[in-house]
Amino acid sequence: MGIVVQKYGGSSVADTEKLMAVARRVVKTAQQGHQVVVVVSAQGKTTDLLIEKARQISKHPPKRELDMLLATGEQASIALLAMAIDSLGQPVISLTGPQGGILTDTQHTKARIRMVDGARIKEELDRGQVVIVAGFQGLTPTNDIATLGRGGSDTTAVAVAAALDAEVCEIYTDVDGVYSADPRLVPEARKLVEVDYGEMLELASLGAMVLQPRAVEVAAVYGVTIHVRSSFSQDEGTRVREVDLMEREITVTGVASDENCAKVTLVGIPNDVNTLCHIFTSLAEVGINVDMIVQAAASKRTTDLSFTVTREDLEETLNTIAEIRSDQEWEVFADDDVVKVSIVGAGMMTNPGVAARMFQALTEADIPVFVVSTSEIKVSCLVPRARHVDAVQALHRKFELHAGK
Amino acid sequence: MGIVVQKYGGSSVADTEKLMAVARRVVKTAQQGHQVVVVVSAQGKTTDLLIEKARQISKHPPKRELDMLLATGEQASIALLAMAIDSLGQPVISLTGPQGGILTDTQHTKARIRMVDGARIKEELDRGQVVIVAGFQGLTPTNDIATLGRGGSDTTAVAVAAALDAEVCEIYTDVDGVYSADPRLVPEARKLVEVDYGEMLELASLGAMVLQPRAVEVAAVYGVTIHVRSSFSQDEGTRVREVDLMEREITVTGVASDENCAKVTLVGIPNDVNTLCHIFTSLAEVGINVDMIVQAAASKRTTDLSFTVTREDLEETLNTIAEIRSDQEWEVFADDDVVKVSIVGAGMMTNPGVAARMFQALTEADIPVFVVSTSEIKVSCLVPRARHVDAVQALHRKFELHAGK
Repeated sequence: MGIVVQKYGGSSVADTEKLMAVARRVVKTAQQGHQVVVVVSAQGKTTDLLIEKARQISKHPPKRELDMLLATGEQASIALLAMAIDSLGQPVISLTGPQGGILTDTQHTKARIRMVDGARIKEELDRGQVVIVAGFQGLTPTNDIATLGRGGSDTTAVAVAAALDAEVCEIYTDVDGVYSADPRLVPEARKLVEVDYGEMLELASLGAMVLQPRAVEVAAVYGVTIHVRSSFSQDEGTRVREVDLMEREITVTGVASDENCAKVTLVGIPNDVNTLCHIFTSLAEVGINVDMIVQAAASKRTTDLSFTVTREDLEETLNTIAEIRSDQEWEVFADDDVVKVSIVGAGMMTNPGVAARMFQALTEADIPVFVVSTSEIKVSCLVPRARHVDAVQALHRKFELHAGK
Repeated sequence: MGIVVQKYGGSSVADTEKLMAVARRVVKTAQQGHQVVVVVSAQGKTTDLLIEKARQISKHPPKRELDMLLATGEQASIALLAMAIDSLGQPVISLTGPQGGILTDTQHTKARIRMVDGARIKEELDRGQVVIVAGFQGLTPTNDIATLGRGGSDTTAVAVAAALDAEVCEIYTDVDGVYSADPRLVPEARKLVEVDYGEMLELASLGAMVLQPRAVEVAAVYGVTIHVRSSFSQDEGTRVREVDLMEREITVTGVASDENCAKVTLVGIPNDVNTLCHIFTSLAEVGINVDMIVQAAASKRTTDLSFTVTREDLEETLNTIAEIRSDQEWEVFADDDVVKVSIVGAGMMTNPGVAARMFQALTEADIPVFVVSTSEIKVSCLVPRARHVDAVQALHRKFELHAGK
């Protein structure tokens, strides 16, 4: 039997009782003959509490020091989980991200994993131990501790699974799989048995919240099968893997939405490549991800530009833009009262009518659309926050997703 | 100006307000032109809370995992202190014990520092930064995190001061120096201006609690001057350094007492070196420190043996003894209702009447003495816990310590 990587989120290890439940599940998997690596997040609201503690001291704490502080959250949970597993008689060892060979870049608070050196993990597995690795954190080339940003534990799990050539990477969450839409918004939403990496990537990055996009990217590159399932039941969840699209009859797999976005509009900027390039380079330099981008020429000399960023990045985005703008004449507008809704499906690329049906559904429901972006497997629209639920329900109905395959 | 190492205990950094007070003191020292290294403990009761959390999961958590958990306490406080210092505009960086080059042996929960590799600390100092190092923790040769046991932060500070050839190692506590006796027991106790390493070693190891004995040992070996002072005032405290004894007129410097001891008595053990050797080797192997030892031959074939250990080690001591005893006929008695009181003074070695005066004082106060041990600079007696305060007061009076030098 092969290596199984299991990842448990913060809510799965929030207190002693839940920790013991996770410990029992881990031990059961080990007793079935698997080598088990467990990746775990900080307990419950620990990360939020630590951030709150930092904010009491400084409004803008140095990011390196914030990482030093936040990394204690996972370090505590790996130690406690190791104690729980040990108390059940199963040999076990915990490793911090740095000890586990999780090597990252130096972008503190949102570092990316560059490589996993699996030597120590393998060595400990070969001693017959369950190995617990702290999610969300790693070691920079300068021997500093960096965190991967919210949800980075998923990425840790998948990267470890890839490095160890694991059989499967099980991601345990408080939901029991990936749905055709958020069940809280659409009661008739349906659990998907399997989704393709590309679909999951769009679903995740668009706010389905079940998996971190970076984790799905890494899984796709290394062919890691992810099994998303509930830590509170034994039911099968949703498998994320390479799906043979020839066998697919359906076009749209799900409706995703992302509440964490804010729209920035620049009116009357010079219509030349240099200015645009300067804006996006400057934002990239401070680590801000720009998502949807729409450009509309207002005249030959000037143009209007809209794009979206996460709500947390809005302040820094506006500061960065302000520096570039200096004494120029263009105007800046920000609006964080928007939500992005998207339809996702790997079959979409062969079906040109999908976008049209989407606009039809939104128009029928009298929902204004601000910005549109498309990719081969999704179409996204920015709509008013107040119409969020209406939009998702209208799309779920229009594409008959409750019927399923 | 040289390097100043400052060590702040858990009560000095217990909350945001106190952290800011420490930050201001650190910045002030840096502004005077010193290069400053700060060693800091976990905030307030953090370590106790973490131990409590571990105990909820397992009565006997693996020591390696306990260290993994406890190390988060200091890691959080170095990060928070760095944020506080940064908020005052002073460049600063925090380093965990492993990052700071604190290299220990593998004895988890009571590891000893084997070496300090000061390269990273020096590098960061030379960049004009205050460097904060986590006390109480270090890196084992197997790349694991080990803690030094309670109070180990003092040792970290002194070892760092030695490695960097610092001017002084300032230890900030909630008392303002070393006293001729515990002022809570003896109201007329006097603050000492300076004490010799040897005296401090006895005072510390006998429970004066102000400094860890291991810290004083390291200071003595490397000639580090320790300045014990209060974090709540600017007053001079007590300097611990090599004191020229020729200039000393007094014999006894102080009265110390240690409540953390338990007496173990073995009755009727075989009177041969092998048995004694086996007992103490076995205790050493599980990391138990034996303190006072008294042996009294009961007959030619058997002997009685008493010794003391810390109260935490009593259970493990008795378990270890039980294994050795197996089917033999000797008996074991334990008593943790005892306290060790001692008189300490570097001048003592040239004054043979001191021990006699000590017994006289205790006899006059009608206090029974169970076990006695002597060294060149101290005499210790085990007395009933109920007579603790009486004993310390009687000795302080007898040697006229309130009068001072």
